[in-house]
Amino acid sequence: MQTEIIIIGNELISGKTRDLNGWYASGCLLSHGLEASEIRTVGDNYDTLSSVLKSAVKRSHFIIVTGGLGPTEDDLTAEIASRALDMPLILDQAVLDHIKNTTKKLALNWSASLEKLAWLPKGAKMLDPQGEMCGFSLSKGDSLLYFLPGVPEQMRELMNRCVIPDILRRYKPAAVPRHRILKVYGLSESRISDVFKGLTAELKKVMFGFYPSFPENHITITVRGKDDTEIERELDRAEKKIRHLLGPYIFASGDEIMESVVGEALKERKMTISVAESCTGGLIGHRLTSVSGSSLYFERGLIVYSNLSKVEMLGVMENTIDSYGAVSDQVVREMAVGVKKIAKTDMGLAVTGIAGPLGGSEDKPVGTVFIGLAVDGEIYSGKYCFSGDRDKVKHNTSEMALDWVRRYLNGYPFIPGI
Amino acid sequence: MQTEIIIIGNELISGKTRDLNGWYASGCLLSHGLEASEIRTVGDNYDTLSSVLKSAVKRSHFIIVTGGLGPTEDDLTAEIASRALDMPLILDQAVLDHIKNTTKKLALNWSASLEKLAWLPKGAKMLDPQGEMCGFSLSKGDSLLYFLPGVPEQMRELMNRCVIPDILRRYKPAAVPRHRILKVYGLSESRISDVFKGLTAELKKVMFGFYPSFPENHITITVRGKDDTEIERELDRAEKKIRHLLGPYIFASGDEIMESVVGEALKERKMTISVAESCTGGLIGHRLTSVSGSSLYFERGLIVYSNLSKVEMLGVMENTIDSYGAVSDQVVREMAVGVKKIAKTDMGLAVTGIAGPLGGSEDKPVGTVFIGLAVDGEIYSGKYCFSGDRDKVKHNTSEMALDWVRRYLNGYPFIPGI
Repeated sequence: MQTEIIIIGNELISGKTRDLNGWYASGCLLSHGLEASEIRTVGDNYDTLSSVLKSAVKRSHFIIVTGGLGPTEDDLTAEIASRALDMPLILDQAVLDHIKNTTKKLALNWSASLEKLAWLPKGAKMLDPQGEMCGFSLSKGDSLLYFLPGVPEQMRELMNRCVIPDILRRYKPAAVPRHRILKVYGLSESRISDVFKGLTAELKKVMFGFYPSFPENHITITVRGKDDTEIERELDRAEKKIRHLLGPYIFASGDEIMESVVGEALKERKMTISVAESCTGGLIGHRLTSVSGSSLYFERGLIVYSNLSKVEMLGVMENTIDSYGAVSDQVVREMAVGVKKIAKTDMGLAVTGIAGPLGGSEDKPVGTVFIGLAVDGEIYSGKYCFSGDRDKVKHNTSEMALDWVRRYLNGYPFIPGI
Repeated sequence: MQTEIIIIGNELISGKTRDLNGWYASGCLLSHGLEASEIRTVGDNYDTLSSVLKSAVKRSHFIIVTGGLGPTEDDLTAEIASRALDMPLILDQAVLDHIKNTTKKLALNWSASLEKLAWLPKGAKMLDPQGEMCGFSLSKGDSLLYFLPGVPEQMRELMNRCVIPDILRRYKPAAVPRHRILKVYGLSESRISDVFKGLTAELKKVMFGFYPSFPENHITITVRGKDDTEIERELDRAEKKIRHLLGPYIFASGDEIMESVVGEALKERKMTISVAESCTGGLIGHRLTSVSGSSLYFERGLIVYSNLSKVEMLGVMENTIDSYGAVSDQVVREMAVGVKKIAKTDMGLAVTGIAGPLGGSEDKPVGTVFIGLAVDGEIYSGKYCFSGDRDKVKHNTSEMALDWVRRYLNGYPFIPGI
């Protein structure tokens, strides 16, 4: 059953607005076993949309179309569909009555431009005859077209409440694909690819996908079939193999994120943490506290941007800064110990570095970062050199620092620095 | 000059990832006078991509293709293009040498899967022979195809540095539209829309666009024409009118962001700032320090998540917390004064609130936030109630707090709270 998605709107092909509907519709369809072959995004333009609709009905069974259904004069979808599909545009009295009733019900003023919404290609069926949203379906040859509004909330509701049930009445998905997502930090895409070389040949029923999501890499495992138990067994087998190959580089699966994984590990061990941030400027604290319930383990954080604040608030020795510089192994260790002591937490996590673009030197180029962790009477520290702009260095630093906590709590070695 | 954009990636037609590249490429092209007729998003699938490429070279002069250039085995773009366009895939020795040199230069390990990047359709030209990114162009009949990596940062850089200049060598745009962007905080879209009612009729040569970008609203002013002086005059006129109507609600224009505007204002007045964050957990510090050179005005920040940390580090009275709660006007005022005093800065900025989803009460529902600013011997404070999830409440709080600084420094009144 070929399926495609057509997204209409001038704002979407002029860099003004990022489309939300194609992305949403494709995920919605896939979760019911229908893979969209394509998402076509076009403007409110007669020639382009017309040819896109004509080619869609030649090859696809289900066609989702969004946008251009409103009352303003740049909303042309119904008219273009009528001409492209050769189905005359008529004033649908039932639809007009429905719009008038809805307007009354919502206590809105009737406006002449609303009549436009009732001019539909002959044969159109309202998607939501009980509700308040516009949207209609059209049958043309072997194809069924669903026309939905472009407003994301309305589109989503109609998709779930009307379109998917209608599709499922006509089509029983044979094999719904199931996915798992594993998230990797600390290995490059090409390293991951090398690791997977043999696996793809070995696990023939499994499809792998690789998606960089800076600074992480996400791996999807997909299995398709009819027997749920068998699918789960294949997924289990694939996940086990991957975990065996990538081990502690896998930090999360599914919807988990680094900060939630770290939070769970801290909660499980009933440990608390405090952070001392220089180059990340608060990003680690922000990430830790983006998880609901983080007050159980996150006590406080110090953004020690100036040298003076490192000395005054953390007890870093002036002498250490003078001798080694604020970006140094010695300073990060004193920062980690200092914040742990002041906050009376089980762990003290510290970072100092040069986020750039200014402040680099030959000895310590932009991207030089030190991470320190004081815990269980020990101090661990390491040096990294991250590439990229200020934002990337900050993000990579926060990720590596959180990964240190995760690895420590799980008994894994830290990712080697330089 | 017909132009189209082809976006490749299984993750983009399965609801996993929202595309950034089609949106970006279309905006980039339009700002140079080229309107894309369509954005086609397809999976890494031989049949679909092949037919999309074939129909593209039949009708379009410039074709931007992104994705599927990486080293993993689901990266199939070069191979599919070679077969669809009938241009044999060859191992390009110059490209291979370039990759080997780049790997060496970046001190990365050579990995066998990297050789794949040098297998290109015959006639392909590297887009960035001096740089480190993959990407190539192909000439086929009257069409020129640009193949770019799917990683947004790389795609953007190549688009601006290599593709656009190459296109402009072949095509002189007749009437490039010029834009200005004005950024608004603190007014809803419908309020802005009301304000613009008369303006659209009055300024006929100007097109306005309204784009919510949470928690901000961005307004684009577009004028199209051949005479630069006249265009600029129209833009000036429109901008002046809008500024007159929206006044201090406009916080930035063009590429400026709230944190850079605040930073510039602090630098200009040679003032320093420190922050005390509870519910934002470091986000304000992170935003302030995301601007290069922020160490000139940002001294330190305290993420006082626990009550104890508010007392110990800021000198907030235990009694105040007991009497009014940690989320209260009284506490935020003591926080602002405390951080200013400890950091010895010109300004102390503080926030405390309930980011949710837990912790709300009838009296203080989720989204209740207090902001405090100590400066020039005065203490200002205000209460807001933001809607949305934890992330939205944190972002809105950080934006409002930064906006307080901006408004104070410019002599504007703060946005009224409740």
